[in-house]
Amino acid sequence: MNAIPPNHPLDIAMRLTPTDDGRLKGTTSDEYWNMMGPFGGTTASLMLKAALDAPARIGDPVALTVNFCAPIAKGDFFIDLKETRTNRSTQHWSMELSQENGIAATATAVFAKRRETWAYQPAAMPAIPPHETLAPMNTEGRNAWLSRYDLRFAEGAMNFEARADDDPAPSRSLLWVADKPARPLDFVSLASLADTFIVRIFLVRGRMVPAGTVSLTTYFHTDAAGLAAQGDAPLVGMADTKTFRQGYFDQSAELWGGDGRLLATSVQTVYFKE
Amino acid sequence: MNAIPPNHPLDIAMRLTPTDDGRLKGTTSDEYWNMMGPFGGTTASLMLKAALDAPARIGDPVALTVNFCAPIAKGDFFIDLKETRTNRSTQHWSMELSQENGIAATATAVFAKRRETWAYQPAAMPAIPPHETLAPMNTEGRNAWLSRYDLRFAEGAMNFEARADDDPAPSRSLLWVADKPARPLDFVSLASLADTFIVRIFLVRGRMVPAGTVSLTTYFHTDAAGLAAQGDAPLVGMADTKTFRQGYFDQSAELWGGDGRLLATSVQTVYFKE
Repeated sequence: MNAIPPNHPLDIAMRLTPTDDGRLKGTTSDEYWNMMGPFGGTTASLMLKAALDAPARIGDPVALTVNFCAPIAKGDFFIDLKETRTNRSTQHWSMELSQENGIAATATAVFAKRRETWAYQPAAMPAIPPHETLAPMNTEGRNAWLSRYDLRFAEGAMNFEARADDDPAPSRSLLWVADKPARPLDFVSLASLADTFIVRIFLVRGRMVPAGTVSLTTYFHTDAAGLAAQGDAPLVGMADTKTFRQGYFDQSAELWGGDGRLLATSVQTVYFKE
Repeated sequence: MNAIPPNHPLDIAMRLTPTDDGRLKGTTSDEYWNMMGPFGGTTASLMLKAALDAPARIGDPVALTVNFCAPIAKGDFFIDLKETRTNRSTQHWSMELSQENGIAATATAVFAKRRETWAYQPAAMPAIPPHETLAPMNTEGRNAWLSRYDLRFAEGAMNFEARADDDPAPSRSLLWVADKPARPLDFVSLASLADTFIVRIFLVRGRMVPAGTVSLTTYFHTDAAGLAAQGDAPLVGMADTKTFRQGYFDQSAELWGGDGRLLATSVQTVYFKE
């Protein structure tokens, strides 16, 4: 097991400092900047980290929902954290991320003390060519956050050059995905990784259109030890959409450990224009 | 289009009265009672209805997440509603449901003014035999809420008699589902319908085990007019699980209109013991 390298860009982006009035203060990361705000994955990770770091926290995250209410501007933000309910083995938290002009994101998280039980995985990891046989996506000149991930597409790679064809392209992507530089997997990085799947509308329409995630829910399928066992090895990721209609579409994703264990699943609903 | 019949049990369960201190007061429904508390679908619908009925509400629901923090006791409860952010075409709400001993459920909802756009549905409705060829599930002697739905299984029917066999059974169910008595579809009923899929652990293990939903997220894929077009005709429902591990499993569901349009998708994470 490798230790987390000092000053990994993700850990710098995740720095939260308690304020005198009981809030957490952070600063947006240029290294994870997206088109019009921070990469949503880091916002999700920050909301999770606020609860993870709370002294009263028990157990490991099971579910995280983040709602993106408004663009987050470059600079400082504050997270308000509320412990809504603590039971013997589960705990609930609510978070709000604010800047000067109001609440920019809300979130809820469920934590649980997990224990060994009967286990069964009906789903199987999609077949994918070995990591070393696929070329990493060229992220040069793209939004900064893309350079913070090693993305190796087996299927459904984004082509940023507009297609002449107007027929919808397949909505599914299958790829290897890892932090860049490499970083041992934990809940904070996994929450970001769950949002690394480029919004399906770009893929299907074959061009960039105005689009943005409005809500993202991630489920974690193992405890901290189960994630640590993955180390910094790349994950297998799959993303797809069921329907695009009336300005919104759903996008679901799976993140698999190299050993075929499903580590996280996520869904998001995404706004699109045109 | 049929009007909603007066005093449908769902609408009685959905009654919320504003209190002098700005909360909403409701009472649990015996007609939708589950094993140890109200059917989670009605709790989800109540959280949604609190925001839907708010005078400041704009648009139609796009995403709803409900976290089940503690059992809800028979009797009165209160919902606190907060408008977290209103933009030109989207709006965010947070809800908390409380009883005497604290917060029992939290929720967030995203609303949006939907408009006609490019549309495309990569997913197809699963093939299912016609509604009239399948027998309704016998709900006699079962938890009350089951009698509030007409459930006609084509695949993955629950068998409440313990199986001798210890091999896991298939985790997928495919069925026709409708309110009983029939009721024209709206967002309130759809939010409940998204939780009518019996928890997969019962199906897979072939017996009842202690289990309960801790978080439920539902995405709505059309506007109010799109739902109204469905009327009171039964929906096609599909539910499945990807992994059961360390005391929790995910469960995803699809709800299709009779015309093959995907009306809602949902995911939930469910606690199980043993």
